[in-house]
Amino acid sequence: MTSGGEIDLTQRTRFPLWARDVLRYGDTDRQGHVNNAAFATFCETGRVSFLIPLLPDGCSFVIARLILDYRAEILWPGEVDIGTMVLAVGRSSFTLGQGLFVADRCVASAESVLVLTDNTTRRSTPLPDHLRARLAEFSGAEPV
Amino acid sequence: MTSGGEIDLTQRTRFPLWARDVLRYGDTDRQGHVNNAAFATFCETGRVSFLIPLLPDGCSFVIARLILDYRAEILWPGEVDIGTMVLAVGRSSFTLGQGLFVADRCVASAESVLVLTDNTTRRSTPLPDHLRARLAEFSGAEPV
Amino acid sequence: MTSGGEIDLTQRTRFPLWARDVLRYGDTDRQGHVNNAAFATFCETGRVSFLIPLLPDGCSFVIARLILDYRAEILWPGEVDIGTMVLAVGRSSFTLGQGLFVADRCVASAESVLVLTDNTTRRSTPLPDHLRARLAEFSGAEPV
Amino acid sequence: MTSGGEIDLTQRTRFPLWARDVLRYGDTDRQGHVNNAAFATFCETGRVSFLIPLLPDGCSFVIARLILDYRAEILWPGEVDIGTMVLAVGRSSFTLGQGLFVADRCVASAESVLVLTDNTTRRSTPLPDHLRARLAEFSGAEPV
Repeated sequence: MTSGGEIDLTQRTRFPLWARDVLRYGDTDRQGHVNNAAFATFCETGRVSFLIPLLPDGCSFVIARLILDYRAEILWPGEVDIGTMVLAVGRSSFTLGQGLFVADRCVASAESVLVLTDNTTRRSTPLPDHLRARLAEFSGAEPV
Repeated sequence: MTSGGEIDLTQRTRFPLWARDVLRYGDTDRQGHVNNAAFATFCETGRVSFLIPLLPDGCSFVIARLILDYRAEILWPGEVDIGTMVLAVGRSSFTLGQGLFVADRCVASAESVLVLTDNTTRRSTPLPDHLRARLAEFSGAEPV
Repeated sequence: MTSGGEIDLTQRTRFPLWARDVLRYGDTDRQGHVNNAAFATFCETGRVSFLIPLLPDGCSFVIARLILDYRAEILWPGEVDIGTMVLAVGRSSFTLGQGLFVADRCVASAESVLVLTDNTTRRSTPLPDHLRARLAEFSGAEPV
Repeated sequence: MTSGGEIDLTQRTRFPLWARDVLRYGDTDRQGHVNNAAFATFCETGRVSFLIPLLPDGCSFVIARLILDYRAEILWPGEVDIGTMVLAVGRSSFTLGQGLFVADRCVASAESVLVLTDNTTRRSTPLPDHLRARLAEFSGAEPV
């Protein structure tokens, strides 16, 4: 699986998929800003809204790796827009690239590796062709 | 179901059942103390450690009511000790009384009403006799 | 402070103030529905969006009591609409009534007691007249 | 800053620093296991217990990057032991390596980059010598 390192995840216009979370007062911590673990939750919001409709019967998507680059603090109140694209597709796993935005500012970018897992064997299983095709449709817009 | 209002839930010595949570940095909010919703989580910690071993097959305990009296703020870091007792037992529901303590200080007290629910019908179902008997064993120590 | 017990908190049309939370995947627990402590967070969302603009200088609103009546489980995904009204105003505290709704269904109702606290003395302080007047404006619509 | 990639973060014996979290019922999600974002919280528990006593006056540690490798699911109830070591020290930032363990099983490993930030300028500031020296003391045990 190749890295998505060459793609700029801080540009809103690159992302084909969008989700939104509303900040909660309890997302903040004693430093006065949104706690760093909430960023992982926002990434999840972007992943699940995209992936759950694509899930093959009898399987789960299991997260294997999350890389989160924190770029700016998030202050409550507000909303977070989560852009998601597919960076790479492997045999039984794939890599998503994400950007978290508050208004036009990129506050974090992330990559996550998801593995398709058979619920019975609890082991990884190859991505079916129709899923590979769907993932390929969301590989990110060309830069303008 | 009678109220447990006469029993003082701020006295450590009254509780027969104990659980403990470790405070987390993310439990705090921008006011610098532990967020009020975390208190509901601490109450849950006390409930589930007690109740899950008592759960009849094919049933769930569903929370119907939570009354939380906040008595002092909780500051991170530290631990919370959660005392639990049974205040009242009805036909298909029962009431727990809880005290949350940081060291010797009572930071909150709570009452919660739990309903035994049949997983198939999704409706309340009478408490079996052995469960009633077990609940009665934890009705709180006599005051010294 | 009088109880708001006579007002039906399960009717959407009664509430003058509204906020909204987006459900998060992590709000769910192993029972498959939204965890009970998240309901306390939704209540907070409704409180803070209303109260923070009303806060007198040098003061905080401190929650003294939360009563949560759980009426139906919440399933992810979706949104929660939080209706808020003022049920009673006392000397240094006031009571809010809230209803949590998923589409048209009331999934919970709540009452919370908030105390105005002086940040220096850490003690309760009387509600200023302009705040009392503002709170009174949101005492809930008459039933149709 | 060099990568800590050569050090095996899945071996308990390598870590000089330890913290512990108690799993909470609400940490689980509808898949029945502990939600992936809670792993970021456990990493934070390990970081803050170590770092807050080391914080220079007028400064904060800001997380710039988190890499989380998920190795096994965590099931409630239980506890998580969090091992922490220093992998690399730069001019104004340093890298921590962490292992999350349930009993003897490594359920995740993580690297995080922390930047020392001046609270007034909101910019990165060089690590003082005494902090560099302290960090160097926790660079991980030699393999047996």
